[in-house]
Amino acid sequence: VNAWRKRVSQDEGLIVVLQFEVSLFLYRFSCSSEGQPCDCTPQMKSANDLVRQKDQKLLHLQAEVKKLQRQLKAEEMAADGQPLPTIYAITPTYTRLVQKAELVRLAQTFLHVKKFHWIVVEDAANRSKLVADLLAQSGLSYTHLSLPTPTIYKLKESDPNWLKPRGVEQRNLGIQWLRENRELSEEAVVYFADDDNTYSLKLFDEMRWTKHVSVWPVGLVGGLRFERPLVENGKVVGFYTAWKPNRPFPMDMAGFAVALQLLLANREARFDINAERGYLESSLLQSLVSIEELEPKADNCNMVLVWHTRTEKPKMKQEDMLQKEGKGSDARIEV
Amino acid sequence: VNAWRKRVSQDEGLIVVLQFEVSLFLYRFSCSSEGQPCDCTPQMKSANDLVRQKDQKLLHLQAEVKKLQRQLKAEEMAADGQPLPTIYAITPTYTRLVQKAELVRLAQTFLHVKKFHWIVVEDAANRSKLVADLLAQSGLSYTHLSLPTPTIYKLKESDPNWLKPRGVEQRNLGIQWLRENRELSEEAVVYFADDDNTYSLKLFDEMRWTKHVSVWPVGLVGGLRFERPLVENGKVVGFYTAWKPNRPFPMDMAGFAVALQLLLANREARFDINAERGYLESSLLQSLVSIEELEPKADNCNMVLVWHTRTEKPKMKQEDMLQKEGKGSDARIEV
Repeated sequence: VNAWRKRVSQDEGLIVVLQFEVSLFLYRFSCSSEGQPCDCTPQMKSANDLVRQKDQKLLHLQAEVKKLQRQLKAEEMAADGQPLPTIYAITPTYTRLVQKAELVRLAQTFLHVKKFHWIVVEDAANRSKLVADLLAQSGLSYTHLSLPTPTIYKLKESDPNWLKPRGVEQRNLGIQWLRENRELSEEAVVYFADDDNTYSLKLFDEMRWTKHVSVWPVGLVGGLRFERPLVENGKVVGFYTAWKPNRPFPMDMAGFAVALQLLLANREARFDINAERGYLESSLLQSLVSIEELEPKADNCNMVLVWHTRTEKPKMKQEDMLQKEGKGSDARIEV
Repeated sequence: VNAWRKRVSQDEGLIVVLQFEVSLFLYRFSCSSEGQPCDCTPQMKSANDLVRQKDQKLLHLQAEVKKLQRQLKAEEMAADGQPLPTIYAITPTYTRLVQKAELVRLAQTFLHVKKFHWIVVEDAANRSKLVADLLAQSGLSYTHLSLPTPTIYKLKESDPNWLKPRGVEQRNLGIQWLRENRELSEEAVVYFADDDNTYSLKLFDEMRWTKHVSVWPVGLVGGLRFERPLVENGKVVGFYTAWKPNRPFPMDMAGFAVALQLLLANREARFDINAERGYLESSLLQSLVSIEELEPKADNCNMVLVWHTRTEKPKMKQEDMLQKEGKGSDARIEV
């Protein structure tokens, strides 16, 4: 530029005019749409700054959306980006005074569990309106089935709870539904979740990645504070249980979950309604797994995350009295 | 430009050189930061398009974030934009085998409720580790208190449940905590939520906008399918109850909620531990409200959204036997 300035100062007159006209030309030409590019650095700099600011905001918001989506249901990925296996809970249920209460609080627990599908099987010839409405309003993904227990296997009102197993054919129907409606390739786990137990949300994180059969302690069962598998070097080597400890799998229904693939690959595996008392769990597990293959969960079976709670049968003394007088509670109000 | 072209074609040699050099100068000068502005329309147009695109994306993402935040807890506004009143639940609790199970499932229900604060009051001289850990891990906003019931008022292990009221002084301590820690101006409602009942999430939507005292049916209580206030023209005109129907407020603890402002304005209102059996609820409500002022909720008291469930005391026969042999369950494992 300095060299050039010297030359310009030498060539006067015409050159000044020329300079102006060339300038005008260049100004018009170089910046017109067909012309050579002009250096729009200052203008573009502020535009680029703006774009950069927006990009930062976008990145920030995109991260926020991802975080929120993760916090919501959409987080159906594990921390490492793998898709979460589905948890199928099979819940047998039967009509009784506390049924709706039990199912309501159970549904409210399950509503926290990601990638969850509830298979509810009523012990009845037909699906009830009460359960159908409850499921429809639950916000859960679900399947509603029903199957009556054959009369000879059915508990009578006067029978003690333990006389006959309950929910056996209903659980088997749940398994059958999975065999007919799900693919062998699906990553998922199946849990037999009775409607009166209490489940910590942590339990579902424990069972989700079951490869074959996973196991954990169950609280308040078998006359003990808890029953549990005994673990050495990460392997189940026995069971802490007081009642019939020589059963092949001396475990409660609430204490294990089975990989869907295992249930689907072993198409004959089912609960045996004729199993001796206490042998129902074993009747299924024996055809699926050996003790050595069991996967201990819940800190090597040192944490109780499910409780075998039982809800009292409510006394209806006043209701019965009033009903005799024709003043029973309004039957249109569902309880 | 045409005129200029003619002149350029006339002035050869030097002019061509000059044109090039002037061009170079102008190019550098006019577009430098100190120079005259050049017409950057085409460049700016694409930059502006980019900014506009980013702005659209930003707006879209901001809406998405708002939606997600609303879906998450942040949605602490009612549909009309008013801030949601807080729900304070006061839960008296005491050490027993099923305590953790009960509190876990209750916490998991409360975790769905927006703007919720749990006041848990243990019937004990000191706060227990079990409850403290459970609350800390619950994800809930909470206050953890303890107060032992004076021995003369305390149920013995052998006493029937109904002999003495339970949780009275604990509920009163919860009320006292609110009086000492909350402002009269706060929009909120107080509910006495025992740890064994079952609560539908819909109940909390019903009680949230309580002005004075709101009421609704309670299922499986008083020997009936449900007890409930009787409503005519939107006003409570009586109660459907069989047991001691002449009580001032023949209602269960689970059947009403009180506006915080009412509790704070009436600083003497409390539960009377000396109240006759069945009169505990009345002992508080009588100093707060008249029957005519009660606000019926849950479709004019035609819906049961809370159930007075009772959890069976688990039998510990095997545990007791094993403990005598020194083989009781591992005491380090919390149940």
